[in-house]
Amino acid sequence: MDSKQFREAAVASIEHIVKYYDTIEERGVASTVEPGYLRKLLPAEAPQEGEAWADIQKDIEAKILPGITHWQSPNFTAWFPSSSSYPAMLGEMYSTAFTGAAFNWICSPAVTELETIVLDWLAKAFGLPTCFLSTGPTNGGGVIHGTASEAIATVLVAARDKYLREATAHLAGDEEAREDAMALRRGRLVALGSAGSHSATKKGAQIAGVRYRSVPVHAADGYKMTGASLRRTIVELRAKGLEPFFLTATLGTTDTCAVDDMDSIADVLAELGRASSPGFGEKTDGAGDIWVHVDAAYAGVSLVCPEYQHLARGLSRFHSFNTNLHKWLLVNFDCSLLYVRDRAPLVDALSVTLPILRNSHTDSGLVTDYRDWQIPFGRRFRSLKVWFVVRTYGIEGLRAHIRRHVGFAETFAGLLRGRPDLFEIVAGPRFALTVFKLKGSEGATLEQQNELTKKMYETILAEGKIFLSSTVVGGLYAVRHNPATPFVEEHHVRKHFGIFVEAAEKVLPK
Amino acid sequence: MDSKQFREAAVASIEHIVKYYDTIEERGVASTVEPGYLRKLLPAEAPQEGEAWADIQKDIEAKILPGITHWQSPNFTAWFPSSSSYPAMLGEMYSTAFTGAAFNWICSPAVTELETIVLDWLAKAFGLPTCFLSTGPTNGGGVIHGTASEAIATVLVAARDKYLREATAHLAGDEEAREDAMALRRGRLVALGSAGSHSATKKGAQIAGVRYRSVPVHAADGYKMTGASLRRTIVELRAKGLEPFFLTATLGTTDTCAVDDMDSIADVLAELGRASSPGFGEKTDGAGDIWVHVDAAYAGVSLVCPEYQHLARGLSRFHSFNTNLHKWLLVNFDCSLLYVRDRAPLVDALSVTLPILRNSHTDSGLVTDYRDWQIPFGRRFRSLKVWFVVRTYGIEGLRAHIRRHVGFAETFAGLLRGRPDLFEIVAGPRFALTVFKLKGSEGATLEQQNELTKKMYETILAEGKIFLSSTVVGGLYAVRHNPATPFVEEHHVRKHFGIFVEAAEKVLPK
Repeated sequence: MDSKQFREAAVASIEHIVKYYDTIEERGVASTVEPGYLRKLLPAEAPQEGEAWADIQKDIEAKILPGITHWQSPNFTAWFPSSSSYPAMLGEMYSTAFTGAAFNWICSPAVTELETIVLDWLAKAFGLPTCFLSTGPTNGGGVIHGTASEAIATVLVAARDKYLREATAHLAGDEEAREDAMALRRGRLVALGSAGSHSATKKGAQIAGVRYRSVPVHAADGYKMTGASLRRTIVELRAKGLEPFFLTATLGTTDTCAVDDMDSIADVLAELGRASSPGFGEKTDGAGDIWVHVDAAYAGVSLVCPEYQHLARGLSRFHSFNTNLHKWLLVNFDCSLLYVRDRAPLVDALSVTLPILRNSHTDSGLVTDYRDWQIPFGRRFRSLKVWFVVRTYGIEGLRAHIRRHVGFAETFAGLLRGRPDLFEIVAGPRFALTVFKLKGSEGATLEQQNELTKKMYETILAEGKIFLSSTVVGGLYAVRHNPATPFVEEHHVRKHFGIFVEAAEKVLPK
Repeated sequence: MDSKQFREAAVASIEHIVKYYDTIEERGVASTVEPGYLRKLLPAEAPQEGEAWADIQKDIEAKILPGITHWQSPNFTAWFPSSSSYPAMLGEMYSTAFTGAAFNWICSPAVTELETIVLDWLAKAFGLPTCFLSTGPTNGGGVIHGTASEAIATVLVAARDKYLREATAHLAGDEEAREDAMALRRGRLVALGSAGSHSATKKGAQIAGVRYRSVPVHAADGYKMTGASLRRTIVELRAKGLEPFFLTATLGTTDTCAVDDMDSIADVLAELGRASSPGFGEKTDGAGDIWVHVDAAYAGVSLVCPEYQHLARGLSRFHSFNTNLHKWLLVNFDCSLLYVRDRAPLVDALSVTLPILRNSHTDSGLVTDYRDWQIPFGRRFRSLKVWFVVRTYGIEGLRAHIRRHVGFAETFAGLLRGRPDLFEIVAGPRFALTVFKLKGSEGATLEQQNELTKKMYETILAEGKIFLSSTVVGGLYAVRHNPATPFVEEHHVRKHFGIFVEAAEKVLPK
């Protein structure tokens, strides 16, 4: 394909994509293919000779689109959104054109430098504490990871190694003895999440080769983790000779968008995390601290609105923070921002360059080697799409985007409240999420109630007019409604409500 | 930005990109900006109000392109290539349009299914053993990761957990005791690479929290790892009470493109790896095996040519294999193919779903949950660009692409041999890489020789006509020439040679 053929093919593809977006509502929102559908449509072996673009492009509509679930449809309310925008798509086009492995600064200085700049822009726009700025007082800063799960695994590894280095500081100079001591100690380490936190922390612990334990949450606390519950868990684990070294606190849990009680968590850790960690003595320099990562994968971007920024106030007491622009802030997947208060533990854990060989540029902060802030070596030029989105919308435009969806969730919750004969809200509206169930009828057991709500959920899924997900919180089966896609309007949300009413009336006993 | 504005902006961007590619040779190949250049050009805060696309696009040429190193320039011969192609760019466009987190099958069935199909296509085209096919006899298959380093970290974690499960099989049923036993045992584990293997294995070991040791390689063996050297390392480590559980063997090392001696490695491991692993008794079912991963990040794609497929013959004796389409096979970064002989250890290590909750679709192989084959949860639709590239070029077109570059390397090496007064080849040509140094003058010490070659390297870098990298192998400072970019022609390679001659004559003592 030469540049002339590419120009034609690209223009045809853009026409196709524009038409796809302009008519996305007409497509069934979730794919209805059967497992294995595509193997029946494609040859068993790659073609020997090249094919023309026109033939390839035809197959997109014929063979690929039936297997696509339309995340940008206004009828998509499942999980969390994965929002798209046109300027982000332009960013991906240019990023692909400037392709390179970009594993260090000279690979393309713009890749490193634009990333630092736009992450500082957003840290300021989110009202994050200055410790998360690249120019802040604690040598911290931000980096773009692919996903929140990658970000969490990465800081978990950094926290593990920081803790082990501090626990074996007395062996410095005898590296073989220290390696042995670290290996033994590693076996006692425990990473913590809450029962509401995303399983990414459990997976991160599996990757890092440490234990994982969950801190209980309770309906009475709105499913948020509290300092009191955390304290009990830490004390119990220490009594068994185990050493909690890492905690994920969540700002907007997956199930219900609960916000953990950051202040009481910080208070408990100030008391239990440091001086009283076994084997660390009375140090007050952060040695033996439990590293707290705040996972704000979905809800974090709401901080772009001043009315949410009180949620960021306590973050300066913690070590790291992530939020996904690819969920709710109009940057196409993937784009998870990770901020750390101090970059040194990341580099210490992930650099394969001996300290003696690190160059002066790196250590002076002039040049950031982002490969040492992440698991992969190579990197894409992801900051370009962020730059395009932020400039195209402006901070005010991004605020309007968030507020629109929050307004829709309030409208939806109001509609639910107007039919107390049919629905009960389990949690929310929080951010753009409302979690609800069918009204339990007089004398029905929990199992019977759950069965009815599940039946409503399955009825709606089978109809295929909207796509949604369900959850179980505190033993209650509930459905989640999260209308945060780019093209959704109030009339869609009212239509969704109508679909719920119809299904509820079908399912509930007359 | 609405769809009309996007159409205009996208067409303008395509024009810009086509012009960029058509005139890429006119740009200085490596960026010459100073660290911090971009911060001086951009505002300190994000704009409050949105900006027009025309203003944003202007900044790409003015502010971004000075900070881009042009990996597609025919004068780029550094590291390994990161090749681009127009059909791959179309694939990225569509992938971005269909954006979604794609963490399981129903998120968009086409994302999962096309990936399985194109990975099978390529496994067949590469002549890989059938154990790496999704339809093969051992429940294996392929998955797309971002980078080789991610692939290696992932299989290393899977290998670690497989080994530990097998070592603690007698404790099955008492999960707490087993967790303790695994934690203790984990401290003794050692991952191995060779002195020539990519530092990704060392980094993977750091992530997995296990020790790393390097198997020596020697100039006399062409810098390839041999079974004899591996045997010595294993025996030494076991004598210290340590347990090697993982080895990266390399097909095309970073420095010199050496191919490790796969047959002798497999023979040594057949003898030492299993029955004689301490604590595993006389099992012959693979328990206690040292997991061998074959890293063919750069050179693996040459297997598309039958004349290289003898290199794949021995792979059936190993556990996993990766090669990067984004290096040398015209698929834009990122796209690393990982093949495993058995998917179970990946899923066991990386799934957070309890076995009892895995659905029948997954276990029946009808539906693949690729999130359990990798570190991140969410996934991009990367197989689309692979599909477009393979169909546009056809297997014959991909072979022609590889052979063209191999031919250029042979031409270049022939030119070097024609000037024995100036140059000595250190390694190669292997695949498209030639490693060479300046001719040592009569009586010069190694240091003096190295100093001269380094001076030649720095002279050429400073001139900026070509971009290249240097290395140190077996104490020799050498430069690497790897002309494997998409637009390179024989006349470029001859021009590069002229640049080396000129610099050599400038640097060598008269």
